[in-house]
Amino acid sequence: MISVIILGAGNVATHLFKAFKKTEEISVNQWYNRHLDLISPYKNDVAIIDDLSQLKEADVYILAVSDDAIKELSSKLPFENRLVVHTSGGVSLYDIDKKHRRGVFYPLQTFSKDACMDFANVPICIEAIKSDDYHILKSLAISIGSATKKVNSDQRRVLHLAAVFVNNFTNQLYRIAHEITESEGADFDILKPLILETANKVQEFSPYMAQTGPAKRNDKKTIRKHLKILNNNPHHKAIYELLTDSIHMTHGRKKL
Amino acid sequence: MISVIILGAGNVATHLFKAFKKTEEISVNQWYNRHLDLISPYKNDVAIIDDLSQLKEADVYILAVSDDAIKELSSKLPFENRLVVHTSGGVSLYDIDKKHRRGVFYPLQTFSKDACMDFANVPICIEAIKSDDYHILKSLAISIGSATKKVNSDQRRVLHLAAVFVNNFTNQLYRIAHEITESEGADFDILKPLILETANKVQEFSPYMAQTGPAKRNDKKTIRKHLKILNNNPHHKAIYELLTDSIHMTHGRKKL
Ligand SMILES: NC(=O)c1ccc[n+]([C@@H]2O[C@H](COP(=O)([O-])OP(=O)(O)OC[C@H]3O[C@@H](n4cnc5c(N)ncnc54)[C@H](OP(=O)(O)O)[C@@H]3O)[C@@H](O)[C@H]2O)c1
Ligand SMILES: NC(=O)c1ccc[n+]([C@@H]2O[C@H](COP(=O)([O-])OP(=O)(O)OC[C@H]3O[C@@H](n4cnc5c(N)ncnc54)[C@H](OP(=O)(O)O)[C@@H]3O)[C@@H](O)[C@H]2O)c1
Repeated sequence: MISVIILGAGNVATHLFKAFKKTEEISVNQWYNRHLDLISPYKNDVAIIDDLSQLKEADVYILAVSDDAIKELSSKLPFENRLVVHTSGGVSLYDIDKKHRRGVFYPLQTFSKDACMDFANVPICIEAIKSDDYHILKSLAISIGSATKKVNSDQRRVLHLAAVFVNNFTNQLYRIAHEITESEGADFDILKPLILETANKVQEFSPYMAQTGPAKRNDKKTIRKHLKILNNNPHHKAIYELLTDSIHMTHGRKKL
Repeated sequence: MISVIILGAGNVATHLFKAFKKTEEISVNQWYNRHLDLISPYKNDVAIIDDLSQLKEADVYILAVSDDAIKELSSKLPFENRLVVHTSGGVSLYDIDKKHRRGVFYPLQTFSKDACMDFANVPICIEAIKSDDYHILKSLAISIGSATKKVNSDQRRVLHLAAVFVNNFTNQLYRIAHEITESEGADFDILKPLILETANKVQEFSPYMAQTGPAKRNDKKTIRKHLKILNNNPHHKAIYELLTDSIHMTHGRKKL
């Protein structure tokens, strides 16, 4: 049985709380947030607090707070030499005050408060200074059904960056597709199966192998037609050109 | 019962053939390709030919050949006033010789020869000059379980362009993420659940609503960290900057 205290009440904190509550291998001793209102709906399930001086003992303290708040909050914790971790992809392990045993418990997934999340689909990147602490964090992840990966700080940094490409930037391409289709009264919805299939394909094949289309084939006629449609939107056109060049570079074609 | 003759033996032709064979509502009368070797494995299931003069009667002739071959092949067909369609997103309906009743049967999906494809996940964009022809094509699509959408040429053109964004360009972002993670010996595979979740989210929410991350939040500190990592790859950096700007424009932030 691993005992945990959660600090913060945002997307990650809430999803972790729900996942921890489901398993008998974990006990959530307390849930802290600086404002009680967000966690008060859970007051029958867990001891809620908004005062750091009331913090009790636990095997792990999880700071699931905004990146910028990690450093200060960790220094304000009224104890030392306990295992304190943050959940951020972009923040150094050393942002946690050095009076603690420090670690990172970074869930490589995108959370929204409303959408359900099965932690079987949430790989957790673990970093810890002490081997014992690493094993506690690993057990914690396994208890909620997550795959785990031991990563160092450099690897976590690039994973976080790569996550921006496959999540935020990809989503922005969907957005541009939405704008392009709407401009002619076409229906964005009929692109949805293609969006899913594109994501499904790289579950099995490498992105290199999965690539198709006019840029990969260097089909100049189609590329010219597309650029002509985009003439009224220089910004979309610039993205088309840059990503077409990128595919050319990857697949050994000349620049546009 | 709709009778069909397929011309071409590539990805689309092969998937259509298999889907047509599965349903009793469609009979495939012949399968033509200029080279028999590709279709000879199917010679027990269908009459295969490599000579256009042997073409028989059918309700629909489907030219599932390379975009550049559609025009010439349609003009070489030794009959007139029959329903002849192509399957391309990027080619005009008027590339089909005007001696025919012309139409388009464009499956908005990405096909690979090896991967299975359930046509329930393949919306078909239909264009036809005559209303009767439109209804034949619609029945054909419904028989294989596809959703259909009536689109005009302008709409099909932008759907094809939008498909490049959500399929080829998205896949290239996956590729860049692969390069970025490998550069630090991190494991691309642990991004796969995030890739799926990103595609899943826009099945329900609009891309606008689904957006998160440092660009959306205008988190300058994280953006600076990411640009620093990308300093050794000006090309990846340019893509990061352009797509971050794009998200800023969509969500009402200033340029980088
Ligand atoms: N969202 C994701 O998809 C995701 C994925 C992986 C990792 N992460 C990481 O997980 C952490 C939390 O992210 P999130 O999305 O859950 O954030 P969030 O929904 O914005 O919630 C942030 C939480 O931090 C608290 N907080 C902010 N400043 C604070 C301060 N100075 N002192 C105490 N508490 C403070 C907020 O408290 P109030 O409620 O009082 O405002 C809130 O409960 C971040 O490090 C993030 O990088 C997020
Ligand atoms: N692949 C996709 O994901 C996809 C999706 C939607 C629409 N489409 C459209 O569907 C059509 C076919 O695409 P595909 O991917 O199936 O192509 P493909 O796999 O490259 O196959 C092309 C076929 O066209 C034949 N062909 C080429 N030039 C010809 C000519 N001059 N005369 C007669 N036949 C010729 C080839 O014959 P040989 O076997 O003899 O070389 C081959 O059978 C294209 O219009 C494409 O835009 C494709």
